[in-house]
Amino acid sequence: MEQASLRDLNEPLIDHAEGQFFLNEAFKIIMEEVLSNGTDIKQKVCEWKEPEELALLLDLGVRETGEPRDKLLQRVRDVAKYSIKTSHPHFFNQQYGGVDYHSLAGRFLTEALNTNLFTYEVAPVFVLMENEVLRGLRQLVGWTEGDGIFCPGGSTSNMYAMNLARYQRFPQVKSQGVWALPRLSIFTSPESHYSVKKSAAFLGIGLDNVIFVKVDDRGRMIPEDLDEKIELSKSQDAVPFLVSCTSGTTVQGGFDPLEHIADICDKHKLWMHVDACWGGSVLFSKKHRHLMKGVDRANSVAWNPHKMLVAGLQCSALLLKDTTNLLKQCHSANATYLFQQDKFYDVNLDIGDKSVQCSRKVDCLKLWLMWKAVGSTGLEERVDKAFIHARYLVEQMKKREGFQLLSMVAPVIKERMMKQGTMMVGYQPLGNKVNFFRVTVFSPLLSQKDMDFFLDEIERLGKDL
Amino acid sequence: MEQASLRDLNEPLIDHAEGQFFLNEAFKIIMEEVLSNGTDIKQKVCEWKEPEELALLLDLGVRETGEPRDKLLQRVRDVAKYSIKTSHPHFFNQQYGGVDYHSLAGRFLTEALNTNLFTYEVAPVFVLMENEVLRGLRQLVGWTEGDGIFCPGGSTSNMYAMNLARYQRFPQVKSQGVWALPRLSIFTSPESHYSVKKSAAFLGIGLDNVIFVKVDDRGRMIPEDLDEKIELSKSQDAVPFLVSCTSGTTVQGGFDPLEHIADICDKHKLWMHVDACWGGSVLFSKKHRHLMKGVDRANSVAWNPHKMLVAGLQCSALLLKDTTNLLKQCHSANATYLFQQDKFYDVNLDIGDKSVQCSRKVDCLKLWLMWKAVGSTGLEERVDKAFIHARYLVEQMKKREGFQLLSMVAPVIKERMMKQGTMMVGYQPLGNKVNFFRVTVFSPLLSQKDMDFFLDEIERLGKDL
Repeated sequence: MEQASLRDLNEPLIDHAEGQFFLNEAFKIIMEEVLSNGTDIKQKVCEWKEPEELALLLDLGVRETGEPRDKLLQRVRDVAKYSIKTSHPHFFNQQYGGVDYHSLAGRFLTEALNTNLFTYEVAPVFVLMENEVLRGLRQLVGWTEGDGIFCPGGSTSNMYAMNLARYQRFPQVKSQGVWALPRLSIFTSPESHYSVKKSAAFLGIGLDNVIFVKVDDRGRMIPEDLDEKIELSKSQDAVPFLVSCTSGTTVQGGFDPLEHIADICDKHKLWMHVDACWGGSVLFSKKHRHLMKGVDRANSVAWNPHKMLVAGLQCSALLLKDTTNLLKQCHSANATYLFQQDKFYDVNLDIGDKSVQCSRKVDCLKLWLMWKAVGSTGLEERVDKAFIHARYLVEQMKKREGFQLLSMVAPVIKERMMKQGTMMVGYQPLGNKVNFFRVTVFSPLLSQKDMDFFLDEIERLGKDL
Repeated sequence: MEQASLRDLNEPLIDHAEGQFFLNEAFKIIMEEVLSNGTDIKQKVCEWKEPEELALLLDLGVRETGEPRDKLLQRVRDVAKYSIKTSHPHFFNQQYGGVDYHSLAGRFLTEALNTNLFTYEVAPVFVLMENEVLRGLRQLVGWTEGDGIFCPGGSTSNMYAMNLARYQRFPQVKSQGVWALPRLSIFTSPESHYSVKKSAAFLGIGLDNVIFVKVDDRGRMIPEDLDEKIELSKSQDAVPFLVSCTSGTTVQGGFDPLEHIADICDKHKLWMHVDACWGGSVLFSKKHRHLMKGVDRANSVAWNPHKMLVAGLQCSALLLKDTTNLLKQCHSANATYLFQQDKFYDVNLDIGDKSVQCSRKVDCLKLWLMWKAVGSTGLEERVDKAFIHARYLVEQMKKREGFQLLSMVAPVIKERMMKQGTMMVGYQPLGNKVNFFRVTVFSPLLSQKDMDFFLDEIERLGKDL
């Protein structure tokens, strides 16, 4: 072997001392910029820049040669500076605002361990922990047994549920594809998350076979219309196989009447899936869990603790009532290089074949550590507080003039708040109605003064309109 | 409003000072246990425990009440202690071993910022950064334009490619499902990753429609057989639409002959996908990139920088030659609550609808920061060193007696190394052959002494067998 190669062999390419120093310095910047300044209401939520300007500021291009430590640390600072502070109390924009420090510690540990969650051999702690966390979530649904898996987001959880429902009814789909099946149909409300549509397209079922059931004025599915639509679909030579209910619709936060829908699923022998990605956390609350009454009758539930519980992106559980190992039967490919059957431990602990992913991140540790830290009662308190915040806002808005007319000018107010960086909140139209703001107020960092700020700031930004 | 509620409103549930103290302490534990001890060859790779014993040790159950700080910090320590040290130089087990501190800093920053990568509004830095990183990777493929997206793992990237290929040929699949299409067929080698099979099942195409093309003794697809199998499939009333090639097979590390396969794809007008999740990083190396000659003729390439480049799980890019916005057309659902068209900036920067995910983690920052730190030449060096390691091992094994017979006793040796915790390496059968060890030696932490340790340790563990 040539000399150059021998020299290469004898020197690792990573300098641990330098690397760990860098990581320490980066950690300090993260603590200061993202977690201290980033949650300080005296600081901006965002530092708006036009895309062209921002690209120049960040000097994004990658090059042949590396850069020195100080320049790299400045890059860490810049990325923090120009990123949105999603933990800031005035980030009312989406359902992942806020921060939980225990969860974040779990996330750092997850990243450092760099574990791939597919076999007990490489992930002993997390195979057992995921199992335990899923058991705890299932218990809140009302199931003493069952199955489940963490997925890369709620859309994937919903997609898995659709695939499982199809496979349970028509197992030949796995080998022969959809051609071997009659035309299928899926039922959901127009207020359901768009992932139901995306799933139907992706799985080869098609958007036309998603049938939308009418909702009431609170965005809740009307069971009578569901029953009629199922009958109609049958009469049109389709085979209904799945109802995807929603607990916590994206825009209005509506909860479908699960008990009534379960009766209809029973009658027609359909798989009942509950997309509780947003609303599922009410199950922690003795006061609000009635919103999901009947959820124990579902076949599957998708629930994102990264939303109302602030576990951090991504933390999305698919829970199943099934005890027949459906998840593994449906998704398995039995790769011999990974799932050897002649191992020295129980190979049922090699859970990787339940997933359609191969590499799968550990998403349970952050939730587990947070749950250990505050207990179920602490999580219950967060949910109850979110409802108190929402009620307070509604009451205050009724007292203020001008909030009814807000919708006409939402895009302008949004632009002003972003460019001034004082606050972020999302807007959208609903059905035939014009734009309105959707404010999310579940972050455990919030208090009354933040609600008042929200109202005052909307008034300030729109006073000349 | 009742008094209790008012009190709740006035107090945030998170104590920043306590939270930040906890995070600081957890960080110290991570530095010590995972990054210092965890990469020290004098320490164990794993601390083997039987599942029942480990569950007891970790006290995994979640409860009503929370726990005090010290107990929680002990839990952080325990999780670290009993988890596999995937950064340890003697972790030869899978293709995600090793650690890069710049990447890890990027991962911590990603977690702290908790950004959801779907709109420019909430992810200005990362929308631009992902774009730039994808451009850099495409350039190595040989494309000056195109598209792409980071996916939650290589299996998802492969699955996206399959869906895009299907949609491009038969756009009606999105609305009408697979029923509106003729029976399709997919071509790949038996040495390809199992995700090709999983994708076919998930997308409703079916395992039976995946046709396996013969390989040579190095696990490389034989182009002549591909051509014949395509003709045969056509004669059996199927419509071939996709060839999934592999650059770096999972077990043997074989590279399919892309140039020849491209000719055949051209002839039959098929989508050419290259699963380069493992091997793609050779494109950084002037010395080894010839292995992927012809890759620029592909329609899509899946590449996982979390493997050979040690960017950390997950970092998986799907690269596309397409310039017609196929990714968005195929996957979009146009949700009005997220992708409003009346925004004050260019809505083409709202890239979320390119994905079938809604919440999507930021996977570009870790790669970007690492790339900035060591440059393309630094990444090239890692690839070249991995090949040097592999060649050294082969040469040394030829010199040692007994390594030919190893395969009979692989499971026993594996059990011994795990229980003693000295090393981890995977084994599997190949075709009709018995078990053998698959050793991965690309981690930038490795040097010659680690190769020698591997060989000595295998001998030591198996000497009485």
